[in-house]
Amino acid sequence: MRFLFLGDVVGKPGYSAVLARAADIRKEARLDAIIINAENAADGAGLMPRQYRRLVEAGVDVMTMGDHLYRRKEIIPVLQSSQRIVRPANYPESSSGKAWTVVSTPAGKLGVISLLGRVFMRPVDCPFTAVDAALEEMATENPRYVFVDMHAEATSDKQIMGRYLDGRVTAVLGTHTHVPTADACILPGGTAFQCDVGMTGPYDSIIGRDIKRVTQTTLHFEPCHFHVATRDVRLSGAIVEANEEGKAISIERFEEQVDQ
Amino acid sequence: MRFLFLGDVVGKPGYSAVLARAADIRKEARLDAIIINAENAADGAGLMPRQYRRLVEAGVDVMTMGDHLYRRKEIIPVLQSSQRIVRPANYPESSSGKAWTVVSTPAGKLGVISLLGRVFMRPVDCPFTAVDAALEEMATENPRYVFVDMHAEATSDKQIMGRYLDGRVTAVLGTHTHVPTADACILPGGTAFQCDVGMTGPYDSIIGRDIKRVTQTTLHFEPCHFHVATRDVRLSGAIVEANEEGKAISIERFEEQVDQ
Amino acid sequence: MRFLFLGDVVGKPGYSAVLARAADIRKEARLDAIIINAENAADGAGLMPRQYRRLVEAGVDVMTMGDHLYRRKEIIPVLQSSQRIVRPANYPESSSGKAWTVVSTPAGKLGVISLLGRVFMRPVDCPFTAVDAALEEMATENPRYVFVDMHAEATSDKQIMGRYLDGRVTAVLGTHTHVPTADACILPGGTAFQCDVGMTGPYDSIIGRDIKRVTQTTLHFEPCHFHVATRDVRLSGAIVEANEEGKAISIERFEEQVDQ
Amino acid sequence: MRFLFLGDVVGKPGYSAVLARAADIRKEARLDAIIINAENAADGAGLMPRQYRRLVEAGVDVMTMGDHLYRRKEIIPVLQSSQRIVRPANYPESSSGKAWTVVSTPAGKLGVISLLGRVFMRPVDCPFTAVDAALEEMATENPRYVFVDMHAEATSDKQIMGRYLDGRVTAVLGTHTHVPTADACILPGGTAFQCDVGMTGPYDSIIGRDIKRVTQTTLHFEPCHFHVATRDVRLSGAIVEANEEGKAISIERFEEQVDQ
Ligand SMILES: [Fe+2]
Ligand SMILES: [Fe+2]
Ligand SMILES: [Fe+2]
Ligand SMILES: [Fe+2]
Ligand SMILES: [Fe+2]
Ligand SMILES: [Fe+2]
Ligand SMILES: [Fe+2]
Ligand SMILES: [Fe+2]
Repeated sequence: MRFLFLGDVVGKPGYSAVLARAADIRKEARLDAIIINAENAADGAGLMPRQYRRLVEAGVDVMTMGDHLYRRKEIIPVLQSSQRIVRPANYPESSSGKAWTVVSTPAGKLGVISLLGRVFMRPVDCPFTAVDAALEEMATENPRYVFVDMHAEATSDKQIMGRYLDGRVTAVLGTHTHVPTADACILPGGTAFQCDVGMTGPYDSIIGRDIKRVTQTTLHFEPCHFHVATRDVRLSGAIVEANEEGKAISIERFEEQVDQ
Repeated sequence: MRFLFLGDVVGKPGYSAVLARAADIRKEARLDAIIINAENAADGAGLMPRQYRRLVEAGVDVMTMGDHLYRRKEIIPVLQSSQRIVRPANYPESSSGKAWTVVSTPAGKLGVISLLGRVFMRPVDCPFTAVDAALEEMATENPRYVFVDMHAEATSDKQIMGRYLDGRVTAVLGTHTHVPTADACILPGGTAFQCDVGMTGPYDSIIGRDIKRVTQTTLHFEPCHFHVATRDVRLSGAIVEANEEGKAISIERFEEQVDQ
Repeated sequence: MRFLFLGDVVGKPGYSAVLARAADIRKEARLDAIIINAENAADGAGLMPRQYRRLVEAGVDVMTMGDHLYRRKEIIPVLQSSQRIVRPANYPESSSGKAWTVVSTPAGKLGVISLLGRVFMRPVDCPFTAVDAALEEMATENPRYVFVDMHAEATSDKQIMGRYLDGRVTAVLGTHTHVPTADACILPGGTAFQCDVGMTGPYDSIIGRDIKRVTQTTLHFEPCHFHVATRDVRLSGAIVEANEEGKAISIERFEEQVDQ
Repeated sequence: MRFLFLGDVVGKPGYSAVLARAADIRKEARLDAIIINAENAADGAGLMPRQYRRLVEAGVDVMTMGDHLYRRKEIIPVLQSSQRIVRPANYPESSSGKAWTVVSTPAGKLGVISLLGRVFMRPVDCPFTAVDAALEEMATENPRYVFVDMHAEATSDKQIMGRYLDGRVTAVLGTHTHVPTADACILPGGTAFQCDVGMTGPYDSIIGRDIKRVTQTTLHFEPCHFHVATRDVRLSGAIVEANEEGKAISIERFEEQVDQ
């Protein structure tokens, strides 16, 4: 099994890049699955149903989200009915969306779980308890591979989750900071880990947003809309290869500059 | 000019590694200067005067600190009297320590400034105002090169500072998350930038601390002392090369595994 | 000198109540001045220019704001040109608005300063440094009385400011939590102090907002607009009496139920 | 049923005042029960086993705690074995202590639950889910009265809990800010509510700590031990009266100055 995980897809630049490149990358990198974090697809915050459908058509197997999950309410029916998108498993049970999903791939069944960190983030329930429950429920479907998106601010939050799940899942890869980390590794138990796989979007920016506007507001406090930036668009993520026991055997950073 | 900046030096493993390797690395990498962030040297929090002196003897040119600046009060007289250590420039004017320093190197004068971010951190004054003031004061000493350690949690905070200082300083390199980022670059104006250069310390850990203890406290809330971990010790940082106008012409990650 | 300070005026219920009652209260309570915190007047966040003008016409002498200062951009020209509204003094110097104002009252000149706390709030500069600077500048106008609105989340932040300014200003009264505290007192140096004077708005609510909607979002995480509530409207604040040296001699809670 | 709840008991001044006065207050105010929040009893943080025992001997029926629960590890065996102290019900199930307790009083059985808020506080699990579970478990013991200590920073957090439990428990009284609020009321469903009952300890202080030391550290950032203050010691809390259906029929602030 080889799968690609692309980090926070930001705005039209990121979204269009995924649509344009997903099919070719799948072939070129001999992938069995593509997973993306889509929380910033809709002009920087949230995901629209039309985007969801077109991303599925373009070959995205599963979408994870993050703290911007409900920024577009239109996505709620999609969250309730679709198999290819999950909400954070440590959101309330009563919230819209699935806590986990399992999809078929040429290499076997792949389970996907999204988690939110708690340090420096809006209050959510314990991600450790939540991931234990999701893994137990998911076991009824017997997925060969399990991928966890740990969407969190603090590096410690992400590292603790990696160690907690080491040997129990195929990969724990982080998102949310929009900056890739240089720490991709296979943990001792066979779980691929990276604190953040980076953003898929415009890199001539402040985490995807127009530099000038963010800077002005930071300096002078007068808020303005932070437009999504436009230049230096890149796909950023990681490719994980796993053996038939579902253990990761390699992880490599994936970065591709998009023609503009 | 070529200088090495090593990120948060953690505990005895990190501190001993710097002592053991600084002189050789200086030769091997043909460095004009070594700067380190020493905020975690004293058993994980703060810096002791004896450590400061031995690090200077070992060839460290300047030390920056961070939010753990005053964790060991013994360092206060050193902060007040020494030229080779700075406090964050956006700490109160009345706080102990220098807001900037300039040291001599074989390649010319090097100015050093430490800044703290504000997002998800303890309240401090505006780092933009503070760095403007420090640069203006420092200009009286006419340093050819200026290095800024942006010690911050949020990637946005770090990127804004990089853009704000682009073309005005040689490098803005980040610390505090203890995880290296894969975004080292030269910004358009000639400033080297990286969100985080990573920790110098034990990597078989949670940001330098014992995995088991941190995990137990996270899961069960019963606090215990978080010992500094011991295994997989690495030096982590970045080497910046600059031209005679003080502009960065290259930045490369520096990582070295330490024999144990 | 007797003045009334009304805390966070919330939405149409709070705003209408101030318009309806200001003139009568001034007479009934023999007031020389009325100051209000108007940060939530415009449908719960910010203040509109038309509201500002009508509040002045209704007899409000000065308006303070808070973290919602710029929620309505339309107020910016008013902040720049008017004498009867101030921005937080510890906002950046480059931000729109005055750091202090002095107005005439029948009892003599009254200076007004707004400050934001830093604990659990968006990063701002040091309120202690800022208030020292504002008091020094304001001294050129020689106000007999000085009022400080300490808009902050943490009780410690507010108490520290009260003690810091004790004997230097007439009153330090807090806002922002929308709940009145039962700690009104005269500090040893002659400064009236209260952690929070409470909200002027609908009390059958969650800090002024519709109970059902806030609760639903808290429980299930699906965001919706938090309408301003409508029932149990009250004016809440404090009346301070000061002697001719500008020292407070009494402080009493002010609460008035509004007919609906 | 009449019970007194005293807010955060701070250090020796607060602890000694409770020991000295509990028995007499019980008689004078014709109380059936005394509950205290004891999280700051041990020199300002935590509670020692000896203190626990002496408080029980002095007539305290139940102790709640808060975010300082485990500051003294010595209390852990007490938390595990005693009926007169509870941990926050929204702490992990694996953490030491009981999520609820029921004690006998002359007026019938009294259940007690402690909850922690989530806004501006360390991550904990959902207090709404936790209180529902605790109430359900507790129902097996059929307490006539139920008291909930909502230990939280934000007023919104506390008000939401009050409304959520209105009609289901006898009282929801808040702690943690160390400042009493002036909002005590009976909610429509018959639940007594107050955002914060205030601290039992030295009021010539910053939330119980030495004014000078806290101020110095706030201004100059150099940390020092924040001694518990000594002057103006008061007991602060609320007295709730309930009918035989467990509904609150009155709530009044309780404040008593202690001779020194
Ligand atoms: Fe996010
Ligand atoms: Fe994101
Ligand atoms: Fe740090
Ligand atoms: Fe550090
Ligand atoms: Fe407000
Ligand atoms: Fe506010
Ligand atoms: Fe507390
Ligand atoms: Fe407390």
